[in-house]
Amino acid sequence: MEFGALEAGGTKMVLSVGNEHNKLTEQTIIATETPEKTLAEIAVWFREKRIVSLGIGSFGPVDLKKESPTYGYITSTPKTGWKNTPILPVLKNELDIPVMIDTDVNAAALAEWKMGAAKGLESCVYVTVGTGIGAGLIIGGKPVHGLIHPEMGHMLVRQVSNDQTSVGFCPYHAGCLEGMASGPAIEKRWGRKAYDLPPDHEAWELESSYLAQMCMNMICAFSPEKIILGGGVMQQKHLFPMIRRKTGMLLNGYIQAKEILEDMDSYIVEPALGTSSGAVGALLLARQAYEES
Amino acid sequence: MEFGALEAGGTKMVLSVGNEHNKLTEQTIIATETPEKTLAEIAVWFREKRIVSLGIGSFGPVDLKKESPTYGYITSTPKTGWKNTPILPVLKNELDIPVMIDTDVNAAALAEWKMGAAKGLESCVYVTVGTGIGAGLIIGGKPVHGLIHPEMGHMLVRQVSNDQTSVGFCPYHAGCLEGMASGPAIEKRWGRKAYDLPPDHEAWELESSYLAQMCMNMICAFSPEKIILGGGVMQQKHLFPMIRRKTGMLLNGYIQAKEILEDMDSYIVEPALGTSSGAVGALLLARQAYEES
Repeated sequence: MEFGALEAGGTKMVLSVGNEHNKLTEQTIIATETPEKTLAEIAVWFREKRIVSLGIGSFGPVDLKKESPTYGYITSTPKTGWKNTPILPVLKNELDIPVMIDTDVNAAALAEWKMGAAKGLESCVYVTVGTGIGAGLIIGGKPVHGLIHPEMGHMLVRQVSNDQTSVGFCPYHAGCLEGMASGPAIEKRWGRKAYDLPPDHEAWELESSYLAQMCMNMICAFSPEKIILGGGVMQQKHLFPMIRRKTGMLLNGYIQAKEILEDMDSYIVEPALGTSSGAVGALLLARQAYEES
Repeated sequence: MEFGALEAGGTKMVLSVGNEHNKLTEQTIIATETPEKTLAEIAVWFREKRIVSLGIGSFGPVDLKKESPTYGYITSTPKTGWKNTPILPVLKNELDIPVMIDTDVNAAALAEWKMGAAKGLESCVYVTVGTGIGAGLIIGGKPVHGLIHPEMGHMLVRQVSNDQTSVGFCPYHAGCLEGMASGPAIEKRWGRKAYDLPPDHEAWELESSYLAQMCMNMICAFSPEKIILGGGVMQQKHLFPMIRRKTGMLLNGYIQAKEILEDMDSYIVEPALGTSSGAVGALLLARQAYEES
């Protein structure tokens, strides 16, 4: 049996097919253009694959309330043309199969919890640091939605003392994490893309300080059993030891958990599924859609 | 059938008896002195009541991991003499009945979720702003523990521009919420207790700004369906409209939920159970201990 998995991003769409062993068997990537053009392309590709259900991990914000009239819509995104896009209703209508949607980061968190870095735990948070900063949260084995869903990139952070901007680059919020530490924030600060900055560039001290604040605030807010850091910026692996060390310094011994006090290397980690967490998570959503149908 | 409910605080212990209709029928309050003296007094009082089980909502941090050798201990508290106090093991041993423990704020959140301001919802957060700042979090109808349990008072906040201190008064963390906005922080800043400051005192602009940051960060972190603010400082009711207005301004329309955009008065609220949330929550824990025994 074949399942469809769509990782819907603001710049690209990753379309995958997978099987009942949670293995991805086929994948293609297309550019994200207008909703009309891109959703039509997606429908054509999946229709040929004879999938029995589809899972979508989408950029957001997404309306995840099943009883809402705009359930499965991408809502207030700043992505041009995609505001109020009924991504789930359109694909469900085109493919006529069960479809389940969650945020891209909740899907990735689900995959890491089920099969990856947080396997066997009750809770974890999966963070992507890239074009934006977002996080998916698993508690009691389920993605957290709540009122809408977490939007952790927009938590406020304290200005690090030698930072030349006090407010950052988010169009909505002065001093939120995404405005201080996303890929575009790094580029605006230093005039170069993150991947063009050498490992000893001062950018990384600043970046790791903000991401350590994020880790601290997550630990205080919901006490996750594992923090998984993915996304383009986290390809700079030298950030991991810096973030771990600074998170420990910020917490300053207050949280008496041996995972934090003694084994930070196993607590703040890379995704075990590499860059596939999102696609595998969408596959898990597809399987759930099929089972519940 | 009678159940025992203990709200264990750093300055006082609230001992209650309640029935199977979740009604408190009797209550007494004793001062928190040494663990030996105070736990013995508590045991004597409850032994006379012939309760079938006991629920404890305790100040913390508390070890909530049932498999841990220090399960039911108060761990790294700064409260003199109470570090590493086996509060659950001692009372269980003295009373020889089922005992369940959670944090004081998780107990209060549970009560507000089951019978109060968040009845019928999936999630809520209960915050106490007083001697310290703490919060209990309910997701999917259950208190969140995770690695240990949330310690939201220690989330970092941005210095408000006209604040004369940039680091606040927490002995562990420069710039955490508790250090900026707890009752003692207010007293250290202005030389007077919170309840002695008139409603038009500038202290309240500052206080509401920090508590609005807290609300924003909670909304971004785990998207609660209701934020309930209790504790001594929140007896200053004029804080509520200030916090609601500032939280809306900080979020700046980013979170597209009608609860936030249109009805903040019903979203950030007082505890429906008044000052009894903690005691009622402990009673609910006692009932759970009895049912699971």
